Amino acid sequence: MNYYGEHVTKLIEELGRLPGIGGRSAQRLAFHILNMPKENAQALADSIMQAREKVKYCSRCFNLTDTDPCPICSSSRRNPNQIMVVESPRDMAAYEKTNDFNGVYHVLHGLISPMDGVSPEDIRIRELINRINDKTEEVILATASTIEGDTTAMYIARLIKPLGVKVSRIAKGVPVGGELEYVDQITLAQALKSRLEV
Amino acid sequence: MNYYGEHVTKLIEELGRLPGIGGRSAQRLAFHILNMPKENAQALADSIMQAREKVKYCSRCFNLTDTDPCPICSSSRRNPNQIMVVESPRDMAAYEKTNDFNGVYHVLHGLISPMDGVSPEDIRIRELINRINDKTEEVILATASTIEGDTTAMYIARLIKPLGVKVSRIAKGVPVGGELEYVDQITLAQALKSRLEV
Repeated sequence: MNYYGEHVTKLIEELGRLPGIGGRSAQRLAFHILNMPKENAQALADSIMQAREKVKYCSRCFNLTDTDPCPICSSSRRNPNQIMVVESPRDMAAYEKTNDFNGVYHVLHGLISPMDGVSPEDIRIRELINRINDKTEEVILATASTIEGDTTAMYIARLIKPLGVKVSRIAKGVPVGGELEYVDQITLAQALKSRLEV
Repeated sequence: MNYYGEHVTKLIEELGRLPGIGGRSAQRLAFHILNMPKENAQALADSIMQAREKVKYCSRCFNLTDTDPCPICSSSRRNPNQIMVVESPRDMAAYEKTNDFNGVYHVLHGLISPMDGVSPEDIRIRELINRINDKTEEVILATASTIEGDTTAMYIARLIKPLGVKVSRIAKGVPVGGELEYVDQITLAQALKSRLEV
């Protein structure tokens, strides 16, 4: 369907390869880009190549970063001995937004999932173990509350506990502001089991 | 929220400016781009700049094209004297997919819409009038079946009829395959009014 000539068709094709962008969205985006001021199109194209070329992983926590170590790992205001283990940079960002955590992170870049062929060696578990030393106070397992998240957390806990380091797991329960009637039964049961005395 | 460093944040920002791409989608797309093979990221960035730089409007029909006149206007197999007037290149493509029209197009790039401040001078109506000559057999108004589409069609019809050229409007009615019970009342009434003897 080369109705618009080669260049527009190519642009639609490339946009259509992105996740969640179907044929129609790709077409809409392409026409938007064609109508953009040239500087904006240039800025978009540049940002793609800059990000792809310049962004690397922090050699300590494996977060995405422009500088190594990343701003969090190199900040003197963070406690380097409290390590929160997360699945992805997005989860790291989610916890940063809470402004409630003052330690550092360790980004696994995946969760153990035998179904998807992801084994412990495929994610950054070895690098986590290597970071742990005498000074490490706590490792907080903040993986998702899914089978993969729980499996990964348990696997890591079993490796770390023998090192004599405190290991914790973020709590499962009813979301804050969540009406009980809309919360699923497994979460309700878990919230009851994890109840705290007030 | 500069959790990922400048380059990733910039990429998320640029992607988030595209229509229909919210903050979360922009983040998802950005991480996908970061994980792409470098050639693919390059291909995406290139296609943006190539399209923005090389694509122009056909000087006859104002379709998007790499060559001027566009492949349709320069095809010897198309009837240059039957002109279908459409709002956008997308509508042109929609009719091309039917394989049922052998004339040429005229792309208005918009519809008259006083509410949005779009007046007849803002779209390619003057250029349409200039294309019409002694040989022109028919002008088919294929704008949308909306207030703006109807207004634009009526406006153009009033300009062209005095030139002694046949002007037609695509039919309104029940969509093919459409169950009557799901078709809105205005369309049903229109379909009745436009009924043809069989």
